[in-house]
Amino acid sequence: MMQDQNDGLWEKAIRRLVPLGLEAWNERRLLDGKLTLTPDLNGGDVERLIKWIDACLADDGGQVAARDRAVTLAREFKALNRDGRARFLMLLAEQYAVDEARVERAMEQWRAAGNEGRMQAALALRDALEPPRMTLLTRFNGVPEGVKFLVDLRAELLSLRKEYPQLAPLEADLKRLLGAWFDVGLLQLEQISWQSSAELLEKLIAYEAVHAIRDWNDLKNRLRPDRRCFAFFHPNMPNEPLIFVEVALVEGMAGSIQAVLDEDAPVLDARRADTAIFYSISNAQAGLAGISFGNFLIKRVVKLLRQELPQLKQFATLSPIPGFSRWLERLPDDVLAGLPGGTVWRDTGSAGALLDPERLDPLRAEALQRLMAWYLCREQRNGRYALDPVAHFHLSNGAQVARLNWAADLSEKGRRQSAGMMVNYRYELPRIETRSQSYTVDGAVATSASMKKLLKA
Amino acid sequence: MMQDQNDGLWEKAIRRLVPLGLEAWNERRLLDGKLTLTPDLNGGDVERLIKWIDACLADDGGQVAARDRAVTLAREFKALNRDGRARFLMLLAEQYAVDEARVERAMEQWRAAGNEGRMQAALALRDALEPPRMTLLTRFNGVPEGVKFLVDLRAELLSLRKEYPQLAPLEADLKRLLGAWFDVGLLQLEQISWQSSAELLEKLIAYEAVHAIRDWNDLKNRLRPDRRCFAFFHPNMPNEPLIFVEVALVEGMAGSIQAVLDEDAPVLDARRADTAIFYSISNAQAGLAGISFGNFLIKRVVKLLRQELPQLKQFATLSPIPGFSRWLERLPDDVLAGLPGGTVWRDTGSAGALLDPERLDPLRAEALQRLMAWYLCREQRNGRYALDPVAHFHLSNGAQVARLNWAADLSEKGRRQSAGMMVNYRYELPRIETRSQSYTVDGAVATSASMKKLLKA
Amino acid sequence: MMQDQNDGLWEKAIRRLVPLGLEAWNERRLLDGKLTLTPDLNGGDVERLIKWIDACLADDGGQVAARDRAVTLAREFKALNRDGRARFLMLLAEQYAVDEARVERAMEQWRAAGNEGRMQAALALRDALEPPRMTLLTRFNGVPEGVKFLVDLRAELLSLRKEYPQLAPLEADLKRLLGAWFDVGLLQLEQISWQSSAELLEKLIAYEAVHAIRDWNDLKNRLRPDRRCFAFFHPNMPNEPLIFVEVALVEGMAGSIQAVLDEDAPVLDARRADTAIFYSISNAQAGLAGISFGNFLIKRVVKLLRQELPQLKQFATLSPIPGFSRWLERLPDDVLAGLPGGTVWRDTGSAGALLDPERLDPLRAEALQRLMAWYLCREQRNGRYALDPVAHFHLSNGAQVARLNWAADLSEKGRRQSAGMMVNYRYELPRIETRSQSYTVDGAVATSASMKKLLKA
Amino acid sequence: MMQDQNDGLWEKAIRRLVPLGLEAWNERRLLDGKLTLTPDLNGGDVERLIKWIDACLADDGGQVAARDRAVTLAREFKALNRDGRARFLMLLAEQYAVDEARVERAMEQWRAAGNEGRMQAALALRDALEPPRMTLLTRFNGVPEGVKFLVDLRAELLSLRKEYPQLAPLEADLKRLLGAWFDVGLLQLEQISWQSSAELLEKLIAYEAVHAIRDWNDLKNRLRPDRRCFAFFHPNMPNEPLIFVEVALVEGMAGSIQAVLDEDAPVLDARRADTAIFYSISNAQAGLAGISFGNFLIKRVVKLLRQELPQLKQFATLSPIPGFSRWLERLPDDVLAGLPGGTVWRDTGSAGALLDPERLDPLRAEALQRLMAWYLCREQRNGRYALDPVAHFHLSNGAQVARLNWAADLSEKGRRQSAGMMVNYRYELPRIETRSQSYTVDGAVATSASMKKLLKA
Repeated sequence: MMQDQNDGLWEKAIRRLVPLGLEAWNERRLLDGKLTLTPDLNGGDVERLIKWIDACLADDGGQVAARDRAVTLAREFKALNRDGRARFLMLLAEQYAVDEARVERAMEQWRAAGNEGRMQAALALRDALEPPRMTLLTRFNGVPEGVKFLVDLRAELLSLRKEYPQLAPLEADLKRLLGAWFDVGLLQLEQISWQSSAELLEKLIAYEAVHAIRDWNDLKNRLRPDRRCFAFFHPNMPNEPLIFVEVALVEGMAGSIQAVLDEDAPVLDARRADTAIFYSISNAQAGLAGISFGNFLIKRVVKLLRQELPQLKQFATLSPIPGFSRWLERLPDDVLAGLPGGTVWRDTGSAGALLDPERLDPLRAEALQRLMAWYLCREQRNGRYALDPVAHFHLSNGAQVARLNWAADLSEKGRRQSAGMMVNYRYELPRIETRSQSYTVDGAVATSASMKKLLKA
Repeated sequence: MMQDQNDGLWEKAIRRLVPLGLEAWNERRLLDGKLTLTPDLNGGDVERLIKWIDACLADDGGQVAARDRAVTLAREFKALNRDGRARFLMLLAEQYAVDEARVERAMEQWRAAGNEGRMQAALALRDALEPPRMTLLTRFNGVPEGVKFLVDLRAELLSLRKEYPQLAPLEADLKRLLGAWFDVGLLQLEQISWQSSAELLEKLIAYEAVHAIRDWNDLKNRLRPDRRCFAFFHPNMPNEPLIFVEVALVEGMAGSIQAVLDEDAPVLDARRADTAIFYSISNAQAGLAGISFGNFLIKRVVKLLRQELPQLKQFATLSPIPGFSRWLERLPDDVLAGLPGGTVWRDTGSAGALLDPERLDPLRAEALQRLMAWYLCREQRNGRYALDPVAHFHLSNGAQVARLNWAADLSEKGRRQSAGMMVNYRYELPRIETRSQSYTVDGAVATSASMKKLLKA
Repeated sequence: MMQDQNDGLWEKAIRRLVPLGLEAWNERRLLDGKLTLTPDLNGGDVERLIKWIDACLADDGGQVAARDRAVTLAREFKALNRDGRARFLMLLAEQYAVDEARVERAMEQWRAAGNEGRMQAALALRDALEPPRMTLLTRFNGVPEGVKFLVDLRAELLSLRKEYPQLAPLEADLKRLLGAWFDVGLLQLEQISWQSSAELLEKLIAYEAVHAIRDWNDLKNRLRPDRRCFAFFHPNMPNEPLIFVEVALVEGMAGSIQAVLDEDAPVLDARRADTAIFYSISNAQAGLAGISFGNFLIKRVVKLLRQELPQLKQFATLSPIPGFSRWLERLPDDVLAGLPGGTVWRDTGSAGALLDPERLDPLRAEALQRLMAWYLCREQRNGRYALDPVAHFHLSNGAQVARLNWAADLSEKGRRQSAGMMVNYRYELPRIETRSQSYTVDGAVATSASMKKLLKA
Repeated sequence: MMQDQNDGLWEKAIRRLVPLGLEAWNERRLLDGKLTLTPDLNGGDVERLIKWIDACLADDGGQVAARDRAVTLAREFKALNRDGRARFLMLLAEQYAVDEARVERAMEQWRAAGNEGRMQAALALRDALEPPRMTLLTRFNGVPEGVKFLVDLRAELLSLRKEYPQLAPLEADLKRLLGAWFDVGLLQLEQISWQSSAELLEKLIAYEAVHAIRDWNDLKNRLRPDRRCFAFFHPNMPNEPLIFVEVALVEGMAGSIQAVLDEDAPVLDARRADTAIFYSISNAQAGLAGISFGNFLIKRVVKLLRQELPQLKQFATLSPIPGFSRWLERLPDDVLAGLPGGTVWRDTGSAGALLDPERLDPLRAEALQRLMAWYLCREQRNGRYALDPVAHFHLSNGAQVARLNWAADLSEKGRRQSAGMMVNYRYELPRIETRSQSYTVDGAVATSASMKKLLKA
C-alpha cells in the first residue's frame, strides 16, 4: 500500500495538472531532453511526468524523438520503487484512458452514416476506443529487450490488480497488445540442450513449475541423450522461453516420476525408445497469462520427435493430479458412498493414509484408484469440463485418460495433492482432433480400457 | 475483370449458402481434411469454401486443427488464378465483415452501462467492431513464410483496389494487422554486405527503386569497402529487406551520382572519409505501403556509422527531385515571371534545353537553379508542406536543404525529371528534432546559406 | 626474368652478408620494428632483410615478437613486384636450407648410438633435416587469412618453378607443411547454395574448371532445388572452397551436359529423383596441387545425399574425356586398324568429321564409339593405369565405366577433345572398395555390359 | 601393470605374427569389414589386429577405405581396458617404429649423392625417419571429435610413460603431429561468457587449475560484467578450450584473491576500470603438454581488452608463488642468514607461523616479505632463470615483478605454499619485448621500485 500522505499530494497534483495535459502537448518542444523522477514519484513529479508522456505520443516527423522519450521514460520507470510504479501505472490507467466523449461522437457518426459511410464510421469508432496509453505502451518496445519489458510490466499489473482494481483496463490493453505480438504463428519452436547457453538454461531452473530442478546436475540429467526439451520463443525475446516441455524417451509407458528423474538411471539409446513421455510443461512468463500456446506446443513437439525418431509409437504425459486430495477431503459422506470405491474407502480408513501410498492396505489402495478415476473422468466443472485443471488442459487438447500410476510421485507435494498417484494422458495422433471436439462440444472424456474398468460400479 | 457468367453463378451460390454458414460451423467435424478448388473458384466451390473458412475460425481446443486448415486454405489460395483470388477476397470482404447488428447491440450496452460497466462495454464494442476475417488473416501466418504471405496479400489487395473498391475494408484490416506486427520497435536494423547471401542480394537488385542496379558488378561496387548498405528486417521475414539505404563514404559533400556509382573510382579508406552520403533509399515491400519506418532508418544508420567511424563529420543525402520538370512545365507564365530566375528562364529559351544540362547557357543554368531552389524550399502542398515528395520526406525528418548539384544525374530519368540536378539534404544531429518540429508544425523549411542566396529575388 | 644488373648486385650482397646471419641473430634487439623494402628488392635491402628473417626465427620468450615480425615480413612480401618476390623466395631457398654439415654430424651420432640412443639420434637427425625456413613459413600463418597466404605462396612457387628450378626444395617444404594442415580428416564438407554468401559464390564462378559458369543466372540455375553443390573447406580458410562438386538430381542416367545446364529445363522435385549425377568437379586451389581429397569428396557426398534423399538409387558422373582426340590423331594407322572400329574409321572418313557429331555418318559414329570404349578401358599409361586422366581418377576411386553418350557436350571444347562424347562413371556402393583395389593393384577396369559390347572385336 | 600370463601370450603372438605383417598387407582385401577385440586385447587378437592396422595404412585408391578402418580401430581402442590399451600402444611403439635398415640405406644414398641429388636424398632420408604408425595416428582424426581423441591419446601416453618407457618414441611422434596442428597461428582466441554453452562452461569448472571453481554460482560470478574470460580454441575442437585466462577489471592494482572472487562484491562498470588483473591461467589439455601458447594468450588478450576498453591503463597478474615455502624450509641456516630479512626471520620465530599471516608479528612479516622478494627476483635455476616456475613464465614473457601482497590468498593452499602472499607481475606494453629478451638472454629480472626496496640488504 502506498504511503498515505504522499498519495494525497499526488492526487491533488494530478487533478490540478491534467487539464494542462493538452497544452503541454504543444509545449513539448520545450522539454530539455532529461527526465528524473523521485523513486516513489512524489507529487512534484506529476507536472513534469505528464508533459513527458504527452511528448512520447507525438506522431509523424517527431515520432523518432517521441520514441526516444518513451525509452527514457521506461528506463526511469524501472528505477522507481513499488509505490512509484503503482502511481505511474495509475496515472496511465486514469488519465490516458479511452476518451468517452470521443466515443459518443463516433457512435453518433455511425448512426448518421449511410451504407457507404459505415466503413469510415467503424474505423473512427475503433480509433476512438483506442486509449492514448496504447501508443505509449507500444513505444516502450524501444528499450533494450523491450518486449520482455512489456511482458514483465503485465506481470506486475497482474500482481497489483487486487490492490489497485483501477489498473484492470490498463492490464487489458497490454494483454491485447501482447496478444497480437505473441500470436502462435509468429513464435519459434526450438530445442533446448546442454549446448544451449548457461544464461538460457538457468531460466529453466527458475521457471520449472512442475518438478523443481534441484541444481545443475539435475538439469544436465534432464538434457541427457534420452531426454528432450523444447520451448516456444518470440523472435524479439531470444533468450526467454515462453513455455517449455520436458520429454523422456523410454521403452513402454512411464509410471514413476522418480524413475524419470533418476540421475543414476542408465541412458537409453534414443533410437530404441518407443514412447515419448511429456513429464513437465511449464509456462515461463507470468506476463503472458491468458495468451495460450500450450496446446500447440505438445502437437508441434510430437511432429518434431516423429521426424527425428520415426520409430516412436506412443506419445503420452506423466502428469500430476493437483486437485484430487482437496476434492476427496471435501466430499460429503453420502456423495462419497455413491462413487466407485467410495464405501470401501469411507469404511476402512483415515485421511492420513493418503500420504503413505507405499504402505497402504491393498483394498484401500484399489478404492483410492477408483475414486481417482472418477475424479479425473467424471467430476465436472460448470457441468461440462473436467474439474481437474491438468485433465481439462489435456482433454481439450484431444488426449485420452490412459493409465493411473500408483506411488508415481513420492515427493511431499505428490503425496499431499494426489496420494502419490500420477496419470498418463495419451495423445493418439489420428484421434486428437475428434477427441478435442467431442470434449469441447459435449464434454465427452476419452478413456482407456483400464480406466473404464476402474470406473465400473 | 472476372469472366461474367461464372460470376453470376458465384454470386447466386453465395447468396444461397451464406445462411448455412453458422450451421456449417457445427458441422465442421464432418470436413474430410481435404480442400481442392478450381483455379478460378467457380460457383460449385462456394459451399465447400464457406464450410472450410468457418472451420478455420474455431477457437480453444480445436484451434490447432483450425490453424492447420487456415494453412491449407492459404496454400489453395496461392494456386488460384487472378479471377479466383479476386473472388475469394471478395467473399472475405463481404461475408466475413463486421456484424453491424452486433455493433448496434454493443452500442446500446455502452449507453446503458454506468461508470463501472464502461470498461466491459468498451471491450465488447471493440470486439464487435472486429470482423471475423481478422482471425483468418492472422492464422494465415502459419503457412511457411506466413508473414511474407500476408504482406504480399496486402500488395495484391492494393493492386486490386481500383477494380474492386469493395475490397477496401479488407485491405484496411490487413493494414491494421501488419501495422501491429511491423511496429518499428520490433524491427532489426542490419548491415548488408558482399558477405550476405546471394538470395538476399538479388532482392536488392529487384527492389532498388532510385538508381537501378544494372548487374552483379554494379551491386558489388555498391558494397565495396567505402560503401555501406543497411536495411530493416522483420524477425519473421529474415530474408526480406523492408526498406534499405545505400551509403557512400566520401571526402566532402558528394555532388554527382555518376561519381558515386563509378565502378572504376578508387576505393577510399573508410577511416579517412568525413562525409556519409545517403544516395538511395528504397521501400522494398509494396504490401507495407503506409506503414512507415523510413524516418527511423536514416537516424539509426547515422548512429551506427558514428560508432563504426567516429571521424565522420557530415551526414547528407544525394537525392533526386522527382517533381521539378513537371511543376515547371505546368507553371503559368505570369507565376513563373514572379519567381527568382523566372523571367530569365522565360525570356531565353525552350523546354527541350532541360534535357541537356551540360550544354546549357550559363545564364539559363543559373535561372534554372534559382527556380529549383524555389521549387524545393517554397512551393507548397496543402499550404504547408513541401510540394516535392522527397523534400517533404527529408524535411519532416529534420533535414536541411543544403546544396543544389548541377549535372548530378545524367541518366535519362535524371534529365527528364530534374534537368540533371540533384540536391543534398543535410542531417545535422543536434538540430534534427527542432527542424522536424518546425517543419511539421509551422511548415518552416531549413535552408543553407547557398540555398538562401539562390532564393533571393 | 629478373633484371640482370640488380640481380648481380643482389647476389654479391647475399654472399657478403650471409656470414653475418648468426651474428645478426644476436643483434636482433637492435631492430627498430620497421621494415620497408624496395618493390624489386634491390641489393641494398639484403642486409636488412636477413637481419629481419633471423629475428623472425627466435624461439621461447621472444616468440611472440618474432611472429609479429614474420607477419610484417609477409605483408612486405605481398607488396613486392614479381622480381622482388622471386629474389626473396630464392633467398629462402638458398640461405635458409638444410644445414648439410649438421646432417652429417647427426648421421655420425646415429651410427655411434646404441639401441637406447637410437630414438634420440633419430630425433636429432630429423631435426637436422628440417630447414630453418620451415619455421618462417609456419609463422607466416599469423597474417590475416594466413593459411590462404601460404596456399597462394605455393601456387606462386609452382608457377615460378620452371624459370627458377632452385626453388624446388622450398616448394617441397611448403607442400609438406600444407600437407599436414590439409589432412582430409581436418577438413569440413559443406553444402553451397543460393543462401551462401555472394563472396563465396563468386569464387565458384572463378574456380569452375570443367564447364565454365557464364554468369550469375547460370550459377543460380546450378543451385536450384534439383541441384546440389558441395565443397571441402579448411577451418582456417572459411570462405575458400578447396574442391567442389556439382550434382544434378535426375530421373535415369543423364546423357547430355546441355540438358543438365539448361536454364529453361523444368525443376524436378528432388524427392522424386532416382539418380545423382556428378557433372563437374573442380580443384579450387592451385597451391594445393598434389594434396588430394577428390576421392574423399565423391564418397562423402554420396553419403550425405543418401541421408537427405534415401530414394536415390544410382550415383554416377557425367564426365569429359579430355585425351581422346589427341590420342586418336596420333595413333599409327596399323595400330588403329587393330582396334575395334579401327578399320571402319580409317577407311571411311577424315579427321574433321570429329567436330560435327550431329551430322556424322552412323557407321562412322559407331566406329568412333568403339574406339572411345577402347581408349577409356584398354589404353594404358605405364602399362597399368588408364591413359585418360579423368578415367584414371574415377577408376582408382572404385567407379565403373558405365555408358558412352553421343552428342553429350556440343561446346567447342567438347567437340574438340572428344568429338562431343561424354562418359558416365558409375559408383556402385558395395563394389567401390573392391574395384578400387583391383584397379590399383592389377589395373583391372570395371566395365558395364554396354561397354563390353563396344569393346568386342 | 598388465596381467602377466596374458602378457606372455601376447608377446609370443606378436613375435610369431609380425613377419606376416607385410604379407597381410596384400591380403587386406580379405578383411571382412568387422573388427572386434577382447577388452584386454589378449593374444588371440594379435593376428587380426596387425592385419587390420596394415589395412589402415593403404594409400591412393584404397585410402578412403583405409581411413574408414582407422576410424573403426580408434573406436575399438576406446572400448579396451587399461591393459588392452597399453598393449595396443606398445604394439604401435614396437612394431610400427622407424625402419632402421631403411634409414641406413637412405644415409648411404645421401653420402653417394652429389649436389644435385642432395635434395632428393634429404627427402628420402626424412621419409625413412617417419615411422609407419604416424600415418595411423593421423588417420585417427577421422573419428568424430578426432583431434580431441588424439590429444587425449597423448595424455594417456604421458600418464603411461613411467610404467612403460618403451612408449616414449610413440609419444614423441604424437607430440610432433599435434605440434604441427596446434601451431598458435591456427588457433582462435575467443571470449567465454555466461552466454556460452553449458557444455563449454562445465569444462572451465573441470579444468581450472589455480583457484578451483566451487560451483555454478562461483562460475557465474567470474563471468559477471566486470570480469572477462578468454581461451584459445582449435577449429577442429570447437568445444574444448586449450588454455584460458580469467581477468578482473578493477580500479587500482588488485591485492587479494579473496576480494577478486567475492560473490558479494559490487559490480564495477567496466568502462570505469583502469586495471586488468589476470588472476588465473589454466592449461586445459594434458595432451598438449609442451606445446605452448600461454605467452601468446596474455598478449593477445591485452590487445583485445585495449580495443574494448581503451581507458585501461595497467595490465598485471595476481599470481601464486608455488615454490616459496618449500624453498624457505630447505634453506640452510647460514645461507638464510645472508639474505635480506634472513637473520630476523631465523632469530624470531618458528615455521608454523607461516600458516597464519594475519597474526604474524610485523617484524617477522617484513622479514618474510624481504625473503620472498629475494626468492622471486634473485633465486635462480640453472644459474640463469628464476627458480619459481610462475615467475619464470611471466618473466620470460616480458613482465616485471611489481608488488608483493600480504594475506592475499588465505586458502589452505595459499597459506601452505607462500604464507598467504601473492605477487603482481606487471605487463608494460612498450617494454615487454626488451624485458623478455633481457631475461631470456641474460637472466635479468625486471623489478619495480617497491621490490627493489625489499631487496636492499
